[in-house]
Amino acid sequence: MIDIQTQFVKNVLEGAGLSLKDSGSAFAPSNIALSKYWGKRDPELNLPINSSLSISLGNLGTKTKIRLADADSVSLNGTPVDLNDGFAIRTLEFLKLFPMVGTHFEVRTENNIPTAAGLASSASGFAALVLALNDLAGWELGGRMLSMLARLGSGSASRSIFEGFVQWHAGNCDDGSDSFAEPFSKPWNEFRIGILELSNARKPVGSRDGMNRTVQTSELYKSWPAQANRDIETIRTAIHTQDFPTLGKAAENNALAMHATMMSAWPPLLYLQPESIEMIHQVQRVRAEGLEVYLTIDAGPNIKLLFLEENESQVAAAFPRLQVIQPFG
Amino acid sequence: MIDIQTQFVKNVLEGAGLSLKDSGSAFAPSNIALSKYWGKRDPELNLPINSSLSISLGNLGTKTKIRLADADSVSLNGTPVDLNDGFAIRTLEFLKLFPMVGTHFEVRTENNIPTAAGLASSASGFAALVLALNDLAGWELGGRMLSMLARLGSGSASRSIFEGFVQWHAGNCDDGSDSFAEPFSKPWNEFRIGILELSNARKPVGSRDGMNRTVQTSELYKSWPAQANRDIETIRTAIHTQDFPTLGKAAENNALAMHATMMSAWPPLLYLQPESIEMIHQVQRVRAEGLEVYLTIDAGPNIKLLFLEENESQVAAAFPRLQVIQPFG
Repeated sequence: MIDIQTQFVKNVLEGAGLSLKDSGSAFAPSNIALSKYWGKRDPELNLPINSSLSISLGNLGTKTKIRLADADSVSLNGTPVDLNDGFAIRTLEFLKLFPMVGTHFEVRTENNIPTAAGLASSASGFAALVLALNDLAGWELGGRMLSMLARLGSGSASRSIFEGFVQWHAGNCDDGSDSFAEPFSKPWNEFRIGILELSNARKPVGSRDGMNRTVQTSELYKSWPAQANRDIETIRTAIHTQDFPTLGKAAENNALAMHATMMSAWPPLLYLQPESIEMIHQVQRVRAEGLEVYLTIDAGPNIKLLFLEENESQVAAAFPRLQVIQPFG
Repeated sequence: MIDIQTQFVKNVLEGAGLSLKDSGSAFAPSNIALSKYWGKRDPELNLPINSSLSISLGNLGTKTKIRLADADSVSLNGTPVDLNDGFAIRTLEFLKLFPMVGTHFEVRTENNIPTAAGLASSASGFAALVLALNDLAGWELGGRMLSMLARLGSGSASRSIFEGFVQWHAGNCDDGSDSFAEPFSKPWNEFRIGILELSNARKPVGSRDGMNRTVQTSELYKSWPAQANRDIETIRTAIHTQDFPTLGKAAENNALAMHATMMSAWPPLLYLQPESIEMIHQVQRVRAEGLEVYLTIDAGPNIKLLFLEENESQVAAAFPRLQVIQPFG
């Protein structure tokens, strides 16, 4: 397993120089997919079945500093992490893919996204780690290569290499060389995302296992790749023309379709909680009253709202617990 | 529209005698689909896109008595129904398809299923009406023909012509002549159904509109017919071998997949309420603890449990508000 990943890393770094510094540091934003990544075609290289499209969350994300050391150490938000903890294990295993840089690392990570808000920290985490490595090693890799390295840590991390709207191309090659992310379009300053934190209960099934179960057992999943392709095209066009209702509709439909594939897996995969359903109904109600607000949901119970600046006060009034994010600063 | 239905009725009644009695009466059971009917290929003849398979609910259903009269009248559970009420309108419109029997009818209907329990009364209602007509007119039609007439009133009514396990064959013909129900297999005396009445709120979208919206807008629906065909075969075999876990699993997966197609429609069709989600999680929890209980859900918020007699007390303990039905008396 490590061999395939090691070979992939070698291919990406071919031709890159090595000019070690004392330490490397970087920030990477969290991101929320408007058209979701759901289903792997290769679990070792994290190659997806379908392309996905996201929006990065501006200055909300992960800041990571790494330096070479005599022994491994990991800290998170200033607190040392036990090396047997899952977070430390995944971080250090990832760094083992880069023996040309070093064998032991001191890793200091800071997340300024509330972990409980249901925002994936693995996306910004692995993206920041790769960017910090690039800084430490002096590779001077381009975004495409960096996104492919981040992908090895976590699929959605490939998108967190960039700001703004980002598309992760699924690619076709078995060696993973054409599965990378790229940013597109200009800022959309009026774009807002609202987080409704409904539950910070630990997920009963992680995303990785959840998508595998869905791919293997859901009959409806067979129609998912076509839906994803359709939604990405719709959303791309809507971003270029700044057609918010079209974007919102496609994003909400895409998220609910992803949850539909989960629900039709066996055993049924139901990340939604009673409060999630209440909020989905509430979004439909206020939209029926004329408010332009749409939702998206990742593999968890929390609801994220999509709306424009001009409707922020009305949305906040309809959803009192809302935490508003400005993805373009 | 009426013309196509009138022609269909003529075809079905071709060769049937007419030997009018004073009155006709009949009982038809309600039924619960284990593999759902979801999607019409012809809205006038109520021809389904996929076959479905149900279990009739024994002595729970509708008793109807009709007689020829000088003016139309309809009563429900002993109370006269206003002729502008939707129930009266649908009943009398259906009877207008049978001018060879009479032009005005007195219809007395009694349901012994709690309407609020989320059990469709239109299925047993139209089946009982057709059976009562057959009695009144002396047609002496066989079950297959009766099921096709009941289908014109409500698709699922075709299955309520029979007791026990029933399959409604979707058929292929445009004229609807091969879309009929038939019973199969012997009684399964240990089979139990438990109703969890969670909400008797009126559905925001009726089944007819709901299935049309799903067929027209859900990308995932494209995989639904294949799922339905697979589930019917699995359930048929499980009934013959009395393999309850296999039946339960296929029925639950089928119901959740139907709701998945709804959820991925646009606008999203979410019949599930917060309490429905709570119960779906609860079923998964108790099953993980070893209790053989499965669920099914129709186009509404209420949950129906499937289990065997031997587990009845345990299921009742886990679901306090349970109302238990013995489909085989």
